[in-house]
Amino acid sequence: MSAALVFHTLKGDELRSFAISVFRYIGCNDADANLATDVLLKADLRGIDSHGVARLSGYVRLWEKGRINAKPNIKVVRETPSTATMDGDAGLGLVVAPRAMELAIEKGKNCGTGWVAVGNSNHFGIAAYHAMKALEFNMIGYALTNASPLVAPTFSKERMLGTNPICYAIPAGKFEPVVIDMSTSSAANGKLEIAQRKNIPVPEGWIQTKDGDTTTDANGLKLGGSLLSLGSDKDRGSHKGYGLGAMVDIFSGVLSGANFGPWVPPFVSFLDVQPNLPGKGLGHFLGAIQVDGFSDVDVFKNNMDLWIERFKNAEPIDAKQPVIIPGEPEAQFMKVRIKEGIPLIDAVVQDLKQLAERFKLDHPFDGCYD
Amino acid sequence: MSAALVFHTLKGDELRSFAISVFRYIGCNDADANLATDVLLKADLRGIDSHGVARLSGYVRLWEKGRINAKPNIKVVRETPSTATMDGDAGLGLVVAPRAMELAIEKGKNCGTGWVAVGNSNHFGIAAYHAMKALEFNMIGYALTNASPLVAPTFSKERMLGTNPICYAIPAGKFEPVVIDMSTSSAANGKLEIAQRKNIPVPEGWIQTKDGDTTTDANGLKLGGSLLSLGSDKDRGSHKGYGLGAMVDIFSGVLSGANFGPWVPPFVSFLDVQPNLPGKGLGHFLGAIQVDGFSDVDVFKNNMDLWIERFKNAEPIDAKQPVIIPGEPEAQFMKVRIKEGIPLIDAVVQDLKQLAERFKLDHPFDGCYD
Repeated sequence: MSAALVFHTLKGDELRSFAISVFRYIGCNDADANLATDVLLKADLRGIDSHGVARLSGYVRLWEKGRINAKPNIKVVRETPSTATMDGDAGLGLVVAPRAMELAIEKGKNCGTGWVAVGNSNHFGIAAYHAMKALEFNMIGYALTNASPLVAPTFSKERMLGTNPICYAIPAGKFEPVVIDMSTSSAANGKLEIAQRKNIPVPEGWIQTKDGDTTTDANGLKLGGSLLSLGSDKDRGSHKGYGLGAMVDIFSGVLSGANFGPWVPPFVSFLDVQPNLPGKGLGHFLGAIQVDGFSDVDVFKNNMDLWIERFKNAEPIDAKQPVIIPGEPEAQFMKVRIKEGIPLIDAVVQDLKQLAERFKLDHPFDGCYD
Repeated sequence: MSAALVFHTLKGDELRSFAISVFRYIGCNDADANLATDVLLKADLRGIDSHGVARLSGYVRLWEKGRINAKPNIKVVRETPSTATMDGDAGLGLVVAPRAMELAIEKGKNCGTGWVAVGNSNHFGIAAYHAMKALEFNMIGYALTNASPLVAPTFSKERMLGTNPICYAIPAGKFEPVVIDMSTSSAANGKLEIAQRKNIPVPEGWIQTKDGDTTTDANGLKLGGSLLSLGSDKDRGSHKGYGLGAMVDIFSGVLSGANFGPWVPPFVSFLDVQPNLPGKGLGHFLGAIQVDGFSDVDVFKNNMDLWIERFKNAEPIDAKQPVIIPGEPEAQFMKVRIKEGIPLIDAVVQDLKQLAERFKLDHPFDGCYD
């Protein structure tokens, strides 16, 4: 039976002030509280509801467990003209990753490309936030992160990889930039959560049970199962999704000195971190690529516009559903939500309200129940 | 009805001498003929039969059509410390891409990473050949190429993208390197060809008909259909495979000044190149990343060994089928085939023999019929 969800719509500015006050409460300085909030809000504005303020209390719980350092000393521990490795000092990934991206952009300006691996960090929100920073400088942005193990490799029933996203943000001319922001599993956890809340089954190919059988039960993951790699099964190329997830893990974790594979610390605070870890925290990998390092920027942007126009007009199977350019739906969400506000499901509003009351913070959530 | 295939096993050296003589015949100098042959043979040795000497007469036919320049003047047309763009002068991709990778490695040595976009090129064989060159220098190698349009974006029935492969070659310590070499469609064309020859159906999720309906007919592509992006359908994430294919197309084609999307020239010589193309030939994107730019090489290799060992030992669904490390099957093929020779199907042997007779070249194919 499908259950209808109750939504409350809040203004971006109200949510922003509230989130800043939470990050200030846990000890972030003003700049960091603003930055972390900006990353979360960008997710909500772009329609990636699972990665926005819905996660705020999750970050707070990690801080309460002592796993997040609100006053990190983020350091460059190694560098060459086009590369660097940073130690995030157990800071919020929401703060650590933007600092790393800044450095990648700086290096990109100086020598064509810049690449920064960051270890000892925490979850960084949506990958697109970080990659899209490069767009302001006529650069292509790139962002990877590893994450808590939920995904099984092909032929395995064990959770070995996170949903390990890959993001590319590519500037265009008259059109919105092309933003490819994808988990390397066939479905990200956020989509599962929606199905759980609505109490509806999920498509075959998203989850397997703890014994490795396919299931359409949206609770399959909670029951000890695992997510499947993009491709869903060996016949349809799940070894490719597994390969991509592995790549993200190696760049984000092994190269940076963070943990990797099944050792990546869990996002949920009720699971303890394992002993004898091979690295510190989790890791990201950020890149900034000067378009001008390869092509006249104008020529590139004109050809990107041609690319976008041609793909938009690719012959559709159903005339009512044209081909979508990666990033187009999110850009559309952003336009609407900046104007009309951000819809949050009731469970998230309740959770945030509790957090506000616990910390005695002003909050915008009472109005939701008028 | 399934048809059994007849194989003939040839020694690598015999095939090598023959392929060199063919490339010499079409006008390549010794170095280029050796290099092009090396790329093709590597595919056969690694078990990627669709990309080895089976393609030799395909390259020759493109040369006969005037689409391949056997004496290219390969030029750097733009560069920064970590980037370059090259013009392949319509040369064999088998020759152009290794030159570009050399430059990427050189730049990587000097400033941590090197990235080269190449336009005006042709098909470059297996991506792994190029990416794996970086391994010799304790670097991670990266290779992309766009290719003849065969793959439809999500929601479309039109062939807009090639099978656009992505390859990462990552060094390890005591274990073989991790080599992820994957097309961004759910199945590459080579697998279809095998099913066609065996006259067996293909799994659902590989192909759609010209009207956009799913089909298991291995001839579906020949009948005007298209390959599906990794993920197979929207529910299972085909928009992610399409996004990856798009990324490969943009880096290889738009950034390099080559053609992109549906304008990429076809590999088969019987299809004519379209008029009014936006670029020249097709394109590649090669990268070389110094491990030392991010981590002590020893630390990285030890952790890669730990990564590999842990993934090999991930709990299998079926004890008889352990988890596979990307690149492991190809490394295994290579060991066997260096010793025991390269099995070619009869159709390929006949085709190569005809080529030899037409050009009056010595060849090793008569022994196959003893």
